Amino acid sequence: MIQQAEHSLMVQAEPLTIFCQRAFQALDVPPEDAAITAEVLVAANLRGIDSHGVARLRRYVDGLRQGVMRPRPQVNILYETPLTALVDGGGGLGQPIGVRAMRLAIAKAKAHGAGFVAVCNSNHYGIAGYYAMMALEHNLIGLSLTNSGPYVVPTFGREAILGTNPISVAVPAGRERPFVLDMSTAVITLGTLEVYRRRGQELLPGWATDAQGEPTTSAAEVLHNLADRAGGGIMPLGGMDEEHGGHKGYGLALLVDILCGVLPDAGYLDRIYLKDETGHSLPANVGHFFGALRIDAFRPLDDFRATMDAFIHRVKSSAQARGQSRIFIHGEKEFEMAEKRRREGIPLGPQVVASLGEIAAELDVEFDLG
Amino acid sequence: MIQQAEHSLMVQAEPLTIFCQRAFQALDVPPEDAAITAEVLVAANLRGIDSHGVARLRRYVDGLRQGVMRPRPQVNILYETPLTALVDGGGGLGQPIGVRAMRLAIAKAKAHGAGFVAVCNSNHYGIAGYYAMMALEHNLIGLSLTNSGPYVVPTFGREAILGTNPISVAVPAGRERPFVLDMSTAVITLGTLEVYRRRGQELLPGWATDAQGEPTTSAAEVLHNLADRAGGGIMPLGGMDEEHGGHKGYGLALLVDILCGVLPDAGYLDRIYLKDETGHSLPANVGHFFGALRIDAFRPLDDFRATMDAFIHRVKSSAQARGQSRIFIHGEKEFEMAEKRRREGIPLGPQVVASLGEIAAELDVEFDLG
Repeated sequence: MIQQAEHSLMVQAEPLTIFCQRAFQALDVPPEDAAITAEVLVAANLRGIDSHGVARLRRYVDGLRQGVMRPRPQVNILYETPLTALVDGGGGLGQPIGVRAMRLAIAKAKAHGAGFVAVCNSNHYGIAGYYAMMALEHNLIGLSLTNSGPYVVPTFGREAILGTNPISVAVPAGRERPFVLDMSTAVITLGTLEVYRRRGQELLPGWATDAQGEPTTSAAEVLHNLADRAGGGIMPLGGMDEEHGGHKGYGLALLVDILCGVLPDAGYLDRIYLKDETGHSLPANVGHFFGALRIDAFRPLDDFRATMDAFIHRVKSSAQARGQSRIFIHGEKEFEMAEKRRREGIPLGPQVVASLGEIAAELDVEFDLG
Repeated sequence: MIQQAEHSLMVQAEPLTIFCQRAFQALDVPPEDAAITAEVLVAANLRGIDSHGVARLRRYVDGLRQGVMRPRPQVNILYETPLTALVDGGGGLGQPIGVRAMRLAIAKAKAHGAGFVAVCNSNHYGIAGYYAMMALEHNLIGLSLTNSGPYVVPTFGREAILGTNPISVAVPAGRERPFVLDMSTAVITLGTLEVYRRRGQELLPGWATDAQGEPTTSAAEVLHNLADRAGGGIMPLGGMDEEHGGHKGYGLALLVDILCGVLPDAGYLDRIYLKDETGHSLPANVGHFFGALRIDAFRPLDDFRATMDAFIHRVKSSAQARGQSRIFIHGEKEFEMAEKRRREGIPLGPQVVASLGEIAAELDVEFDLG
């Protein structure tokens, strides 16, 4: 996780959410969709994933203004069975499309045992974990996948044709917190490259390659090459070769793109976020895949919860490596961060505050963060 | 992949399969179960995954003789819905249990769109990919997961409480070969440690830790510590820290164990392959999770196949890194190896041949590899 800059403004989640919602409404997004999108953005900040939080509001504002994202999309269910659906998001914001698609998967799972919804023609949907976690209150296992812009290079390749294609799975427990895996299938994110460039720090080995597909430690070079599509980019989870399993991260990235891009006939690989001949962005055609599975279709829920608690307890009570004080379960850091930030507020760096202020002025929206 | 020793004997798949089948039948395994187990073992050799092939026959023979694996298990469906089933494998061989559970998942998917079968009380089932690939001829996406003995250390930990917990997903294509991901969630396998010990080679950084949870390059030390459960072991995919995403491999390993261990109430973490007070092995209580998903529950199959072909073609035709000549899709190397070995035979090292000869003598089974 990237640390916030110093001199942060501490802002409560509620006024921040209300501000974002107003901004979306000023761009003709209907109130419910605006509320959903605002909530997903602020949920990222609460969980400490600031790269996917309100710092991205500018991107959505510009997308809506330029017509790349549609405020009132025509969302269509193109095909449906009791267990499955294929949804065309109509080029709308990824968050309301994602929330409704996940609700549909949940309803199907509650009725039949499992539900899967594939989505095409959507946009960036924020943190994958938000949708997987929607399953928890229904005592379901939740799955959320999305493809994304191409920044990642396949094993033995030098073209960035893969997204950071995250995988999120949420599983309820009993007295313990749920297990929430929310991971990109790349070794680092674009945000990490940006932080290293800003700090002038050298990249670690195994993170990125240059235009020839050879290792590089220069974040500036990698970002420059990615912008020019000159070759090179971020490595898959496992690094640049098979020795440390880079082909596994590459395989997971392909799998996510098969389910999110190929299955719903969305954009995939570098056929996503395309531009026309004049350099104008076309609709991104991002694809998602959502799933929900009933635990009690296998075993009584309370028995499962008790075993999950014992499982989590065994992992957390296992011996630590020298110098370490704690073993974490996935989601635990984020739940603790959310509790802390609900109490103390969300720290927003000066650049983010300035960007929100500019958006407020542009859209003539009240800017009162509390 | 580990190269075979020199002076290998080239053996055709068919006589090797027949030999293994006879060995299992001599141990009171019914003919169909013996045939399935033999086929899964030889399929590993054909695909070049020799660590999971007939080199393991000794382990199964000993397991059956010692009563840890049951030749004629009482397999029970403990709970079933149209989409799901929970199966008790009765302590039998993992392969016939796995094949029947995957067949059940496939039948459910064909009838309803998706099928999931969780299995407890099983044993080592060989290569995960065999079961996922069973879905291909039915035009389904196949999923196969298993937990396994504890050799892998969680991030920040020093106890090997995680299995190498593989993930396999198979997806049909059109004219292109299917996508077959079959990966352990650890950075290396136990087999790699054994090869490095035999060769006296130093382990690469990020592969393993010592008893204190600190990096080590000694395979002998790691294997010794694992045998004594003294601390340390193999790292998850991504290595020992969060900088290269070790927490992601660790999270995937937990996810596999939740679906294979917790969900079906099988063994999990280090509560698998247990021994009693006198040091005798108890039933392993390995758990598996199988899934199948209908593609045409989302989109016409032929459309999907055509998009898969375009997807695969785009990846394979992307530019290679300097010094590389080819970009692989997952499963491709194994399909090519299987074609080669069906033609030229399977190379068996002298140790493996000797071990099969000993088994033949012990069981009074004809040993004619052709």
